[in-house]
Amino acid sequence: MKWKHKDLLGINLLSKEEIEYLLERGKYFREFLDCSPKKMKYGEGYCLVNFFLEPSTRTRVSFETAGRLLGMEVVNFTSEASSFQKGESLEDTAKTLSRMKFDVLVVRHHQSGVAEYLAQLLPLHVINAGDGMREHPTQALLDLLTLQRKFGYFQGLKVAIVGDILHSRVARSLTLGLKKLGAEVFFSGPPTLLPLAMEHLGAKIIFPVEEAVKGVDVIYLLRIQKERQEAGYFPSIREYAHFFGLKEKWLDRENSRPLIMHPGPVNRGVEIGYSFTEEDFSLIEEQVTCGVAVRMATLETLLQGEEQ
Amino acid sequence: MKWKHKDLLGINLLSKEEIEYLLERGKYFREFLDCSPKKMKYGEGYCLVNFFLEPSTRTRVSFETAGRLLGMEVVNFTSEASSFQKGESLEDTAKTLSRMKFDVLVVRHHQSGVAEYLAQLLPLHVINAGDGMREHPTQALLDLLTLQRKFGYFQGLKVAIVGDILHSRVARSLTLGLKKLGAEVFFSGPPTLLPLAMEHLGAKIIFPVEEAVKGVDVIYLLRIQKERQEAGYFPSIREYAHFFGLKEKWLDRENSRPLIMHPGPVNRGVEIGYSFTEEDFSLIEEQVTCGVAVRMATLETLLQGEEQ
Amino acid sequence: MKWKHKDLLGINLLSKEEIEYLLERGKYFREFLDCSPKKMKYGEGYCLVNFFLEPSTRTRVSFETAGRLLGMEVVNFTSEASSFQKGESLEDTAKTLSRMKFDVLVVRHHQSGVAEYLAQLLPLHVINAGDGMREHPTQALLDLLTLQRKFGYFQGLKVAIVGDILHSRVARSLTLGLKKLGAEVFFSGPPTLLPLAMEHLGAKIIFPVEEAVKGVDVIYLLRIQKERQEAGYFPSIREYAHFFGLKEKWLDRENSRPLIMHPGPVNRGVEIGYSFTEEDFSLIEEQVTCGVAVRMATLETLLQGEEQ
Repeated sequence: MKWKHKDLLGINLLSKEEIEYLLERGKYFREFLDCSPKKMKYGEGYCLVNFFLEPSTRTRVSFETAGRLLGMEVVNFTSEASSFQKGESLEDTAKTLSRMKFDVLVVRHHQSGVAEYLAQLLPLHVINAGDGMREHPTQALLDLLTLQRKFGYFQGLKVAIVGDILHSRVARSLTLGLKKLGAEVFFSGPPTLLPLAMEHLGAKIIFPVEEAVKGVDVIYLLRIQKERQEAGYFPSIREYAHFFGLKEKWLDRENSRPLIMHPGPVNRGVEIGYSFTEEDFSLIEEQVTCGVAVRMATLETLLQGEEQ
Repeated sequence: MKWKHKDLLGINLLSKEEIEYLLERGKYFREFLDCSPKKMKYGEGYCLVNFFLEPSTRTRVSFETAGRLLGMEVVNFTSEASSFQKGESLEDTAKTLSRMKFDVLVVRHHQSGVAEYLAQLLPLHVINAGDGMREHPTQALLDLLTLQRKFGYFQGLKVAIVGDILHSRVARSLTLGLKKLGAEVFFSGPPTLLPLAMEHLGAKIIFPVEEAVKGVDVIYLLRIQKERQEAGYFPSIREYAHFFGLKEKWLDRENSRPLIMHPGPVNRGVEIGYSFTEEDFSLIEEQVTCGVAVRMATLETLLQGEEQ
Repeated sequence: MKWKHKDLLGINLLSKEEIEYLLERGKYFREFLDCSPKKMKYGEGYCLVNFFLEPSTRTRVSFETAGRLLGMEVVNFTSEASSFQKGESLEDTAKTLSRMKFDVLVVRHHQSGVAEYLAQLLPLHVINAGDGMREHPTQALLDLLTLQRKFGYFQGLKVAIVGDILHSRVARSLTLGLKKLGAEVFFSGPPTLLPLAMEHLGAKIIFPVEEAVKGVDVIYLLRIQKERQEAGYFPSIREYAHFFGLKEKWLDRENSRPLIMHPGPVNRGVEIGYSFTEEDFSLIEEQVTCGVAVRMATLETLLQGEEQ
């Protein structure tokens, strides 16, 4: 496939065929990850900078590992140690990294639209690793790869996403991806965090949550941010856990049990209780490995586009 | 030698022959470290993650250097930047790193037993880089390599360990190693930090410290943690330094002077005064180089075991 | 050229020919940086440690990138995570890094003279990445390379340096370099930050700043530290910006406009306003790329000296 995007900014900008291409390459890298030792030369001489202005060790390490396994050089630039304390503008810093001749910039920022802004400003490849409440495309791709490997199809697959849909770039990107591939998506969660307008993403809102999870193939639990409670969206973490935390009865069905997904890290005792043993019904760990795989696929695809 | 352990958790789990094998490989890498340039391909395609939940730049950098010189990819995951702030469990984080397909996880944690717990939980190789008051096996191996290179024998070697034996994983691991190899170990320090029960490790407790260091080949000074003073174990750092800091008269002997060791970093003015010039009687710097060497030996040995 | 220095400590220690040699190699690496993919094998098997005891992500990343592109292994040791919290002395830590067998130590420290002290103490190559108010030689080299690539000559080139000359290692190193190469240097800024004694560096002090920038080829704006205002050197950041921030009228000349340089990061709204579009008159971005290039040149030159 001839790749025509300089950057990976959001699932909304990708066609069905482009998503399928990335999943196909992701599948290849997922198998590669089971090898040991494992090392590629494809990315040699390309440099990636992790430009993370919001703390996220998990995603940063995933990109770092993906880049290294491809043979790239990876440098971390995180906010803690950055010059931002000294009053430099985001634009100037990003330009600096570009002028240090990095080939790929992976950016996470708490404001929506930052990745797109930098992609227009700079000649290097920009990968959005989460911008505010907007998109987190590699998260969606890893979720899709996990589903594809488990089910083998998307058409008619039923996925319930539960939690704080309103603020979730994960929910947004995933829903866009699932809809493009033909799956059905249901939203549920605290009504304050799930305005009706969210249906524009193509999902159906169902209350209460027990109704939403009935008959679905997958229950995707979103991580709840404690700040939301402080902002008054729901009364307490305990109450959230009581109503929206995973329950055994959601899984206890005559035919097939639904599988559980979560973007991680799980708030134990909130979205999922400590007592659950996950081996048999959870895809959460597989999501992690698929994360490295789709990031390798993304890096390969963007660098390859450059060569054409 | 056919290596049969997946992990390196403690000296207590190694036989005399296994320790000797690691020291033999350590000796080889110690010589390699004097080369420049120096680079191996042995570890290519293997990935190491430094999972440090207790600050320790020195040990982290030593493992990072050891891994890189072997040709491995090394990624750092330290608590400062971690998701622990967000409420993820240690178990979930470690599982995540395992599912990112790292081959080796080097863990430091303030709680005893964490390394062993993770080793049982996860398929990857776990190296204990210090767990609470329990074990710090690569520190013991580097101490042993330093001694072996200097003296050439262990049988009958006399080592006095001075300081906070009670809380010291360094003392514990080293004593276990020295005893397995035939050396004699003496403990001394503030009585509050040296209960008689510590003799179960195979060392003899001697008070006062002047008696303990008389006639030994090596005086091993432990680092004192300032928290111990706050907890009431001894009246003041100054008093500790006065009684247990290195004194010229300990070294001033008719026959051979004892050599000094310390796990580092030295509290200058406490365990060792600022005025000491160390060149002629100290093994402290050599310990550092041996540290990189035994970590290379450990990594090679665990990865090699995998291939069988 | 036969290189005779173990270390790069300051421009004051380099001859005109040595500076020219580093610029010649820098020019070579500057061209290399426009390639993609780009990777060298020259530095394979050599290890660099970034020993930064003062926050500076920009310079740290620049050295890390330079080392990696040469094929070196690079490890970061920064103060945040360091053992300094535990009372270890600077000397002991540096000795530790040396004994871990790093080949090159890049040091930044807020005290003048630290780099020189460590260079005398340790056998490895020391590069001064900024010591207190003294020198920052790779910054001067990158500034010189930027100028050389733009103008092609130094003899008679006129450069005005504006700002806090008193505390600036950047101004000091650059002035020493420019004078050795035959350029003319003018200083201007707040009189409290520009004592007459600074003329010993070979520059001419001119007040007011409008006079200093008249007829020069380049205006080099120094970064103002907010601490200086707190220390009473000038009344307010706003007043500093009003008098010493870049003005359109400085650039508005009949013949050629002067070019602007800045060591970065720019305090937007202080040294340079938000409204300036820099493309046509600024060398600031090019300085960043030249920074990676001269650091590659420095590393190559020091390692090469070792081989002779």
